[in-house]
Amino acid sequence: MSYNTFGQMFRVTTWGESHGPAIGAVVDGCPPGVALSEADLQPWLDRRRPGQSKFTTQRQEADTVRILSGTYQGRSTGTPIQLLIENTDQRSKDYGDIAASFRPGHADITYHQKYGIRDPRGGGRSSARETAARVAAGGVARAVLAALVPDLKITGYMVQMGPHGIDRARFDADQIAQNPFWCPDAAAATRWALYLDQLRRDGNSVGAVVEVVAAGVPPGLGAPVYGKLDADLAAAMMSINAVKAVEIGAGMAAASLTGVDNADEIRMGPDGPQFLSNHAGGILGGISTGQDVVVRFAVKPTSSILTPRRTITTTGDEVELITRGRHDPCVGIRAVPVGEAMLACVLLDHLLRDRGQTGGERGVIG
Amino acid sequence: MSYNTFGQMFRVTTWGESHGPAIGAVVDGCPPGVALSEADLQPWLDRRRPGQSKFTTQRQEADTVRILSGTYQGRSTGTPIQLLIENTDQRSKDYGDIAASFRPGHADITYHQKYGIRDPRGGGRSSARETAARVAAGGVARAVLAALVPDLKITGYMVQMGPHGIDRARFDADQIAQNPFWCPDAAAATRWALYLDQLRRDGNSVGAVVEVVAAGVPPGLGAPVYGKLDADLAAAMMSINAVKAVEIGAGMAAASLTGVDNADEIRMGPDGPQFLSNHAGGILGGISTGQDVVVRFAVKPTSSILTPRRTITTTGDEVELITRGRHDPCVGIRAVPVGEAMLACVLLDHLLRDRGQTGGERGVIG
Amino acid sequence: MSYNTFGQMFRVTTWGESHGPAIGAVVDGCPPGVALSEADLQPWLDRRRPGQSKFTTQRQEADTVRILSGTYQGRSTGTPIQLLIENTDQRSKDYGDIAASFRPGHADITYHQKYGIRDPRGGGRSSARETAARVAAGGVARAVLAALVPDLKITGYMVQMGPHGIDRARFDADQIAQNPFWCPDAAAATRWALYLDQLRRDGNSVGAVVEVVAAGVPPGLGAPVYGKLDADLAAAMMSINAVKAVEIGAGMAAASLTGVDNADEIRMGPDGPQFLSNHAGGILGGISTGQDVVVRFAVKPTSSILTPRRTITTTGDEVELITRGRHDPCVGIRAVPVGEAMLACVLLDHLLRDRGQTGGERGVIG
Amino acid sequence: MSYNTFGQMFRVTTWGESHGPAIGAVVDGCPPGVALSEADLQPWLDRRRPGQSKFTTQRQEADTVRILSGTYQGRSTGTPIQLLIENTDQRSKDYGDIAASFRPGHADITYHQKYGIRDPRGGGRSSARETAARVAAGGVARAVLAALVPDLKITGYMVQMGPHGIDRARFDADQIAQNPFWCPDAAAATRWALYLDQLRRDGNSVGAVVEVVAAGVPPGLGAPVYGKLDADLAAAMMSINAVKAVEIGAGMAAASLTGVDNADEIRMGPDGPQFLSNHAGGILGGISTGQDVVVRFAVKPTSSILTPRRTITTTGDEVELITRGRHDPCVGIRAVPVGEAMLACVLLDHLLRDRGQTGGERGVIG
Repeated sequence: MSYNTFGQMFRVTTWGESHGPAIGAVVDGCPPGVALSEADLQPWLDRRRPGQSKFTTQRQEADTVRILSGTYQGRSTGTPIQLLIENTDQRSKDYGDIAASFRPGHADITYHQKYGIRDPRGGGRSSARETAARVAAGGVARAVLAALVPDLKITGYMVQMGPHGIDRARFDADQIAQNPFWCPDAAAATRWALYLDQLRRDGNSVGAVVEVVAAGVPPGLGAPVYGKLDADLAAAMMSINAVKAVEIGAGMAAASLTGVDNADEIRMGPDGPQFLSNHAGGILGGISTGQDVVVRFAVKPTSSILTPRRTITTTGDEVELITRGRHDPCVGIRAVPVGEAMLACVLLDHLLRDRGQTGGERGVIG
Repeated sequence: MSYNTFGQMFRVTTWGESHGPAIGAVVDGCPPGVALSEADLQPWLDRRRPGQSKFTTQRQEADTVRILSGTYQGRSTGTPIQLLIENTDQRSKDYGDIAASFRPGHADITYHQKYGIRDPRGGGRSSARETAARVAAGGVARAVLAALVPDLKITGYMVQMGPHGIDRARFDADQIAQNPFWCPDAAAATRWALYLDQLRRDGNSVGAVVEVVAAGVPPGLGAPVYGKLDADLAAAMMSINAVKAVEIGAGMAAASLTGVDNADEIRMGPDGPQFLSNHAGGILGGISTGQDVVVRFAVKPTSSILTPRRTITTTGDEVELITRGRHDPCVGIRAVPVGEAMLACVLLDHLLRDRGQTGGERGVIG
Repeated sequence: MSYNTFGQMFRVTTWGESHGPAIGAVVDGCPPGVALSEADLQPWLDRRRPGQSKFTTQRQEADTVRILSGTYQGRSTGTPIQLLIENTDQRSKDYGDIAASFRPGHADITYHQKYGIRDPRGGGRSSARETAARVAAGGVARAVLAALVPDLKITGYMVQMGPHGIDRARFDADQIAQNPFWCPDAAAATRWALYLDQLRRDGNSVGAVVEVVAAGVPPGLGAPVYGKLDADLAAAMMSINAVKAVEIGAGMAAASLTGVDNADEIRMGPDGPQFLSNHAGGILGGISTGQDVVVRFAVKPTSSILTPRRTITTTGDEVELITRGRHDPCVGIRAVPVGEAMLACVLLDHLLRDRGQTGGERGVIG
Repeated sequence: MSYNTFGQMFRVTTWGESHGPAIGAVVDGCPPGVALSEADLQPWLDRRRPGQSKFTTQRQEADTVRILSGTYQGRSTGTPIQLLIENTDQRSKDYGDIAASFRPGHADITYHQKYGIRDPRGGGRSSARETAARVAAGGVARAVLAALVPDLKITGYMVQMGPHGIDRARFDADQIAQNPFWCPDAAAATRWALYLDQLRRDGNSVGAVVEVVAAGVPPGLGAPVYGKLDADLAAAMMSINAVKAVEIGAGMAAASLTGVDNADEIRMGPDGPQFLSNHAGGILGGISTGQDVVVRFAVKPTSSILTPRRTITTTGDEVELITRGRHDPCVGIRAVPVGEAMLACVLLDHLLRDRGQTGGERGVIG
């Protein structure tokens, strides 16, 4: 079962609620002997940390991660790694209303119906705060990948905010860290700032599309037919709060292509097969091709908004609800480092699974 | 590990290659006492069966399913159900070329790189033939769902072929079975026929979008945060051959919505909460709301086409490849019953998981 | 994979090393709505706590358990429960020698060979300290069992220390808590005290046999053929430190019986089938019969002893090693509450698995 | 979930009932490129085959195994391997009585209570016939082990029949195949023949102890703390029909030892550590030491006997039952090849798991 665990050989189990004393993750199956300290993880958490611009929730969390187990003298021992992040800025009083009413578009009502009980403070387990634990676990995955596949590089960014997409011709990787949106198109970032500021002041929110790319992925990761790399990526991304769609490579656009156009033709390069395009997003038959692995996902707008929406209470009364509190007007922004973390975890998991089954050897070509 | 197994409590393990003696599935964890015979399964297989129109592969397979275990006197016993489908029309000589060359856009090359060996006859394990086993397993899931949740109804159909979508205003469920495309829009079906016929004669193929909907799903199925119903649906659909994207509810379009528009407002209906819209696709926080569960996926065009494409051989030579043989010009068509089967399996799995954890009780409202 | 997780629906993942900052367990899949607080768990930990008599290690640990997640207002919410126990009495200097040498009979050498690195302080992950986390998790299982199967009762005790067994004719359940050995035979307890005191003063240690019994287990728990209740119990008990054998019911003695003697004959009682004996230990074909579930396991003597033993160092030198530090002369004593905890967890897991698959209904007799 | 599956990376799912059309196993996760044909598997099945002497059931089954998938041109492809064995000698009329009555000591009653339905013909799923599928799967494991660890050798034999043990001083591996009991002590085999013949004629049956040993196991297989090699072996052996106890190394006798005696002292040999004894049975802390892995299990006597035993019927009537049909008077005999097969599967599974996590490298000594 996998209620709160993902991965097979590199397994991550997260726990914790938004307003409990702490949240965290247990990482099991980590290869031994990898250099790993809290200093390796903290930078990733800092990127996801709230309160860094007016475009994310104003909740102030240090998000300091502690390693409670699984390392010795700065290296992983192969035993489970407990990552703990304390919650320090819980203003539970902000959430009085949500205990009694169900926010439209939020998990409030389904948790209530399934469990008959829920921790309403800050969304409890359904809070995006849970993703801090993912980012910490992703940091472990990155440290291991850095040791095993030094050339592998993961990059995430936003390609669309609301109806406003980037111009792919203006894609500049250096821009990504230069604006509060992880936007690779400087002009788009400027437009998004104005657009989002207005929405925020209107008590509204908006969706986004995030793209994460892994370069340097060795061929052969993934397995037919229910252990496909893309199937696991789809589950991993869809498990992120507010995600409603996942695309690999051409994604939904693949439906519009003909076979002639969609074929990623192949030539021999100096180091083996070379593909002339990448509609496949680096995955064929569920197995990596060696090209960039390209994943995209859509994040819906935050459901906690200041505009009144019709809903019901736990006692069945019909009300109009305004959700106060400190919410992200575009939760897609902070989903960027989360998507990167999930990609890192899934790739490492498949790397370990592959070398378990095949020993890591590759069928030769040429 | 889940190389060839999906599901947790209702588990399906498929096996078999396109041109081996047979393919099949083991269904484990089936509730006992459910009426189940081969006659219950065969109709689902007949819907997926190839060779029924000029728009699907001309391979002729009876796809007769046999139950080898797990039932007694026409009822399930709770023990594993082995479903076996013999391969009867294997013309392996058709596949001489593919043993030596890699079809662009096909799993040929990744299987070769990962395993160093592959069964090239008809695509071996990566053939869409594997989906017959899914449909058989889905038939078991449907029989159980019919017993446990009689009102649950699953419907699949195609909503787009290449660039040509249906007109939602013309949606007519009764049309779905009236054309070879499972198309709910009669006018679109007519256009698609002309379009696809031309493509086929051009030695080309095309992608499609399939939508599958489950009505009557009880609230409370799914679990935070890595056992989300939508995460499992995403993996299930992405594991189908040629699928490149999965959407839940509004899907990619959710990115363009504001929070005000995306909120599925709630009123009290006679039987409990009533949602005024369904952007969520019936799932909030990974748990079903009781609304229609709506899943959509994009199927890329068949990579085996008669138009020459540039590729390489196993010995590294650069060639142009024409793929002869009997291939679907739009493999999305036959993906419709497969998508339905996967939806049935995932829903039943979550139904059993839910009653395991919660006993099936629901938090009251009102 | 299950390196540090056990259970399927009621899943326990433990983490932590003997001399790290803390150890703990994540309990996932807990049914919601169950009354659960730290006060419910602490008594079980207190029973396992070291330093309570001269017959267990003199390490002083408060073993205070904290619940960091998964409960709200004193009830379980169905989300993961993080249990944390701080390590407070770590005297790592005691362990200087073991970092360089391998204790014969200890996991030192295998950890080194497998991982190339190990935390030598107090045995690291291989320390019996890990079992505190099991006991905490077992406390959660007991709380749930108390709610779901109020009549279920779990009792553990020691039936043998070294060569000295109890006299079954003198079995008195009330004695179990009256001596430091969980011994149900008062006379045996007196003899054991003298025997163990002498061994301890000789710098030696000794093995033991522990029996754990669950009364009131409903029939129908377990599943053929690799989800057998006894197979899971065998794995659970064998996973406890130092356990070398597991028996169900008659156990090894079943080999000596004839079919005529071994048959647990059946009559009709007022509430259904009544067995006239229990050689089966409450399990037939891997499924509970409704009789007492009886599990026994052998614990080997502690390998950390003050008598010099020949071994080698990490550099391959041959040495004689004396293990100083604070060790249990008979680690079987503290295995009693651990065995109880494992039994509780396995039974609850199977209870949830059963009601998932069957809905908890039972085939009628009569 | 693992109702009918065992193993993590090398996964075996068995299916089928005693009197259905066939039984079989799906082997998933098999490394690719391993030479594998039906001729490699059949010899193992022939060893387990019934009807080879008067000391086993007289049912005549060819037990011919067919490989339906997962190989190509005589080598494994890394995809699932379906192994199918047809049932050819089903005399279901023999089982009229057992449909209505529950055999004491048999799974009849628990299947009925759990599922409300069971296939009574020949014991259905609970029949020892299921073990043929294990032996076939074990054959696959052996073929892979032969490729990956050529020096690994697995040997099983019976060490006790009823109260009559072998004399370890007379152990002669060459005798094992020379008598119908897989007995390594020729004198004991002669006594067992007389003893069992008498029991058989008396309409009785008897238990046995089987020992399986793997030599040449590399150090480092297994993982703390719930993926221990011995925990998995315990579950694997306990899952075999009629097994009531599992021992590793000294087993239950470890309870009687002192720490001084139990320590397997270590010296440096020419190729690394050399242990001076093997009380541990080749496993310390759940991880293999490189010594012989020694597992023993007790098999209870067959419950289907010709001597009348008191029981009840499905309608609750009290009766005396004589079980006719073709049953093994000592089912332990045929458990020998089954135990070997399970050992092979578990070792291979852990070999793959280990190389997944660690890459197969070993910590150096010296």
